[in-house]
Amino acid sequence: MPASPIGPELQRLIDLLAKMPGFGPRSAKRAALYLLKKREPVMRPLAFALDDAANKVKACSVCGNWDSIDPCAVCADIDRDNTVLCVVQDVADLWALERAGAHKGRYHVLGGLLSPLDGVGPDDLNMGALIARVTGGAITEVVLALPSTVDGQTTAHYLTEHLENGTVTVTRLSQGVPVGGELDYLDEGTLAAAMRSRRPF
Amino acid sequence: MPASPIGPELQRLIDLLAKMPGFGPRSAKRAALYLLKKREPVMRPLAFALDDAANKVKACSVCGNWDSIDPCAVCADIDRDNTVLCVVQDVADLWALERAGAHKGRYHVLGGLLSPLDGVGPDDLNMGALIARVTGGAITEVVLALPSTVDGQTTAHYLTEHLENGTVTVTRLSQGVPVGGELDYLDEGTLAAAMRSRRPF
Repeated sequence: MPASPIGPELQRLIDLLAKMPGFGPRSAKRAALYLLKKREPVMRPLAFALDDAANKVKACSVCGNWDSIDPCAVCADIDRDNTVLCVVQDVADLWALERAGAHKGRYHVLGGLLSPLDGVGPDDLNMGALIARVTGGAITEVVLALPSTVDGQTTAHYLTEHLENGTVTVTRLSQGVPVGGELDYLDEGTLAAAMRSRRPF
Repeated sequence: MPASPIGPELQRLIDLLAKMPGFGPRSAKRAALYLLKKREPVMRPLAFALDDAANKVKACSVCGNWDSIDPCAVCADIDRDNTVLCVVQDVADLWALERAGAHKGRYHVLGGLLSPLDGVGPDDLNMGALIARVTGGAITEVVLALPSTVDGQTTAHYLTEHLENGTVTVTRLSQGVPVGGELDYLDEGTLAAAMRSRRPF
């Protein structure tokens, strides 16, 4: 077995890069070579930014979003509607809704979904804080922006049971044909749901 | 304009991740969220590995390979054949040939290709050292493992003119390398076959 042409420092870097989503061993090698060519403009700043973010970025104590300030920028924004609360599975979903400009109220990040099969119960998620927020506050509508999966449905049912009362309405995102989507490429479940909830044109 | 849900530390991390090959703004966000969830096992070690490699990994003074030792592990390996020298464009190509186990001799990394149109001449590449290595040493064969592109052919012609003499034969990888293809993207079998059937240039 000849000596590897890749030294231990480089190999460790490649192994760590290969753990990132979308990267494998070969793309990690390409990324490592790219970074070595861009040491000052990219590689060192990236090392610093990783360390800096690992130290400073925390989960917001109110909603669970990730930010370097607490409460986070979304919770601290006084121009948002305090009566509508949007519940999401993950920070990525919060960012997606913000990118779409789809929601002007507040958020709550669960950090996962109920999954009896995987042993994930209410205490494993950011749910106690959600129930306290809804029962103790000015909120009149809770929008469940959860995935249309079995676990998403389970979580939605659980939350509806615990949150809906005389003053709070629970809603969920509509299901249907994606904007720009071709019917031919859609799965049967989505098509059936879109047909069931058809609306006047 | 509402406040962004992504703080400045996170945004800087995402912007830097998005510069890596194969990453765009959206996959960089996904990677940043993944890293924040894996702070101790991946994020901090990656920050350290980037900084460590940026400090320690240098171009080998003999062949131009990247390693933390100089001469690099390939040059320092006493079991390799000193009479056959393989010339490659880039470190990635050296790694690809090593991965294929296609070459048991020495290497020389040019760091690019001659490109009259882009103003890249012999002085911009690691060529003086190559000519000195070949004329002053035990080398009897120089294998040009360069891409089958116009610039690769130009470089191969130039090197053949300057390297071939009574004791040194210049060969090249056999056709089998797809025209316009980069070595780094080839499968090992094709690389090994091309190395076996190398022919006089």
